[in-house]
Amino acid sequence: MRTVDVAIIGAGSAGIAARSEVVRVTDDYVVIDDGTLGTTCARVGCMPSKSLIQVANDFHRRAVFEEMGIAGASALAVDRGRAMAHVRRLRDAFVDAVLKDMRTWQEHLVRARAHFVDANTLAVGDDTIKAKAVVIATGSRPVMPVAWRPLSRHLLDTDSFFEADTLPDRMAVIGIGAIGTELGLALARLGVDVVAVSTNRAIAGLSSPALQELAAKLLSREMQIRYGRAMLEAGGARPLRVGIGPEAWDVDAALVAVGRRPNMAGLGLDEIGVALDEKGLPKVDPTTMRIENTSIYLAGDASGGRAIFHEAVDEGRMAGFNAARLESHCFQRSPRLAITFSDPNIAVVGRGWQSLTNDGVDFVTGQASFARQGRAVVMGESEGQIEVYVDRKSGKLLGTEMIAPRAEHLAHLLAFALSMNVTVHQFLQMPFYHPAIEEGLRTAVKDAAYKLERRIRDIEAMRCAEPPAGGTV
Amino acid sequence: MRTVDVAIIGAGSAGIAARSEVVRVTDDYVVIDDGTLGTTCARVGCMPSKSLIQVANDFHRRAVFEEMGIAGASALAVDRGRAMAHVRRLRDAFVDAVLKDMRTWQEHLVRARAHFVDANTLAVGDDTIKAKAVVIATGSRPVMPVAWRPLSRHLLDTDSFFEADTLPDRMAVIGIGAIGTELGLALARLGVDVVAVSTNRAIAGLSSPALQELAAKLLSREMQIRYGRAMLEAGGARPLRVGIGPEAWDVDAALVAVGRRPNMAGLGLDEIGVALDEKGLPKVDPTTMRIENTSIYLAGDASGGRAIFHEAVDEGRMAGFNAARLESHCFQRSPRLAITFSDPNIAVVGRGWQSLTNDGVDFVTGQASFARQGRAVVMGESEGQIEVYVDRKSGKLLGTEMIAPRAEHLAHLLAFALSMNVTVHQFLQMPFYHPAIEEGLRTAVKDAAYKLERRIRDIEAMRCAEPPAGGTV
Repeated sequence: MRTVDVAIIGAGSAGIAARSEVVRVTDDYVVIDDGTLGTTCARVGCMPSKSLIQVANDFHRRAVFEEMGIAGASALAVDRGRAMAHVRRLRDAFVDAVLKDMRTWQEHLVRARAHFVDANTLAVGDDTIKAKAVVIATGSRPVMPVAWRPLSRHLLDTDSFFEADTLPDRMAVIGIGAIGTELGLALARLGVDVVAVSTNRAIAGLSSPALQELAAKLLSREMQIRYGRAMLEAGGARPLRVGIGPEAWDVDAALVAVGRRPNMAGLGLDEIGVALDEKGLPKVDPTTMRIENTSIYLAGDASGGRAIFHEAVDEGRMAGFNAARLESHCFQRSPRLAITFSDPNIAVVGRGWQSLTNDGVDFVTGQASFARQGRAVVMGESEGQIEVYVDRKSGKLLGTEMIAPRAEHLAHLLAFALSMNVTVHQFLQMPFYHPAIEEGLRTAVKDAAYKLERRIRDIEAMRCAEPPAGGTV
Repeated sequence: MRTVDVAIIGAGSAGIAARSEVVRVTDDYVVIDDGTLGTTCARVGCMPSKSLIQVANDFHRRAVFEEMGIAGASALAVDRGRAMAHVRRLRDAFVDAVLKDMRTWQEHLVRARAHFVDANTLAVGDDTIKAKAVVIATGSRPVMPVAWRPLSRHLLDTDSFFEADTLPDRMAVIGIGAIGTELGLALARLGVDVVAVSTNRAIAGLSSPALQELAAKLLSREMQIRYGRAMLEAGGARPLRVGIGPEAWDVDAALVAVGRRPNMAGLGLDEIGVALDEKGLPKVDPTTMRIENTSIYLAGDASGGRAIFHEAVDEGRMAGFNAARLESHCFQRSPRLAITFSDPNIAVVGRGWQSLTNDGVDFVTGQASFARQGRAVVMGESEGQIEVYVDRKSGKLLGTEMIAPRAEHLAHLLAFALSMNVTVHQFLQMPFYHPAIEEGLRTAVKDAAYKLERRIRDIEAMRCAEPPAGGTV
């Protein structure tokens, strides 16, 4: 039996982040993981997906070459096998960087599976580890409906997708959340005939009906989108038949991207008396990451919150900070920042339209289109729409949803504004270069300012706090 | 003779912005302009330059195609004549948009040249216009050294550059400020053999020696850069010979980009007793845009300040606001935001290294490289460096200089931070998506935070204001 201050279960992004805080307090810790090392993000998530998207978007740009005076675009051809090999080369480098860093603390790594005996005791392989505090950072895995398991030869999820030697000619993408939207569009741009199927219209997490409609319209130029429940069966003209209502598509394979599920089963939390909800998840305070009345902390995808890398890192650090001190300090959570790297990008920051509407918040919506936006026209990417949500009385920014060129950067700007809790008038005091995509965001914020209960023109907000120094003429 | 409330001299970006404020107070105004309409930005500045850069950068991307699995890059060829035609097509659309808007107030436009008779009287062509207030918004023009006028057949400036039917094979670019850097690199990427000459090392306005050196290194891969005074003469193997010290280049033409000069001569300000400085410019209060003790206001490039579109618009609005009221209200000026659309982008925001150093400010420099930055690697653009300048005692952000991928967006984020007057710790509370270029900026800010007199770890800055709710475990 071994005794430590902190045991971290899971050596992914959240676990590694937890460790980075624990080591500032104690060197007496273990990180327990029996799975593939290298983090979900680097192995099968953010990094390989962005790498494939980059190839797809670079190839796609050839559509504007002729108009610009660049000849020869028709001679360009993408070799999907070589593109996938390129993605794996980059991925391997990112994974290697993670592994290299882990080697600096490898004597703390236990390669086994952990199971709770009591709140401070873990059965770890054949060993037992007693810990003053435990951080659960076991991550998540792609959901694969049980009914489809017999078809698994023809199904890919993000765990298997990036291992594919090449990509077939016809594919279905089941689910149009961030992952389905990103990879579906990338596949289409790489020449795969794609049909995407979703039971709902929340493309890439958009909740605004107008933006859902625009996203569907823009994506539909490059792939087919169908709403309904996908019925999968083997056979037909190709290995897999995908039925949606009366329609059917024969495809070579389907990418199943219907969500991720926390890796919580098998830990034995229920056996030691921790109450679990209907999803099998314990109740955790999102500002401390502590499971109520225990010395157990939860972090990352395992917590069932927003399964996004930077949230996993934040939660890991909070959990590690508190676990190492056996305390439950409260931390401010960042505003939601969700980016889908489609083209145009789709982003949701802070509170979305549906949530504000459901809660009866009194808000105005500032809108802007990129149809005639200068920089977007120059880039040949003049499609997109921003909605900015602003509290009608206070003028405070509440959130945004957008599908827009380079929305990833606009999203960061808005996220900072939200973290500073500013009004639209404070926001409009910043300079905007011309021509910049950021000017489109300004247009939306100005539109919101115009709709507020108390209207202040932006130039009035620029007035000095002091009375005019020069007096009247 | 005609009498009006406000006469605006110049129908460019600053004059149009001034008008937009004047019409909120009075409809009794004129805008006087005898030159080509459509604004410097749309005709010969921001818009056509960004259009050419877009073509150049799209063509340049072919260098990464092979590695990504995209074949056929060697078949791509740019037709520089067609590229220039594309640029003019876009430019014409932008100019048309300006002209269309101007038609809504064309009865206020006087197509003649104005000359001051006294502070409230203008000779305008054969007419005389009396105005309670005058806004001077006469813009600027490219500097062309007198000694080079005999060579004018072989010289281009930004006024003539975009009219060129095509671009020759070998060109010199004189001056490596924003314009010289942008167009020099674009020309090189379009296959022109470029030598750039500068009397100083402040490439694109960078003042940090380390960043000047990096910028020179990166740009030198695509064009030659020489420091010294360019000596131009006709003849040699090509129409123009450019000498720098002992070296000489034979080129087809030279783009002269050694700065812009306010259009102030000929207005007669000196004749009516307004004191002019050694550059021939009147003294203007930058927070009111009023010329001291007069009812004359100055705005845009004519004011001799930062010749940047958004500054011209700000100044135009301030001048128009005050002129229409015959007052001198004070306005807060935005932090400096200067972006050069080279690749990587170069940006200077707020205070630069040299200015802080000269003034003896006690500051620390946070640094970050993009050499191994995840997203930059995925984009195949992993070169660049950020310097963030922070007040050592207060931790307040002071400014940044950078040469970095997508620095235009990082610059906007920093500009907002500066306009909010935040500390590095406030800045670090915002969420950063992964993988995003913005993470590189965070690295630089974290590095600065680590060097401050009073160090606060970012996680400490995330602590709730309230004491921990849950107490200790």
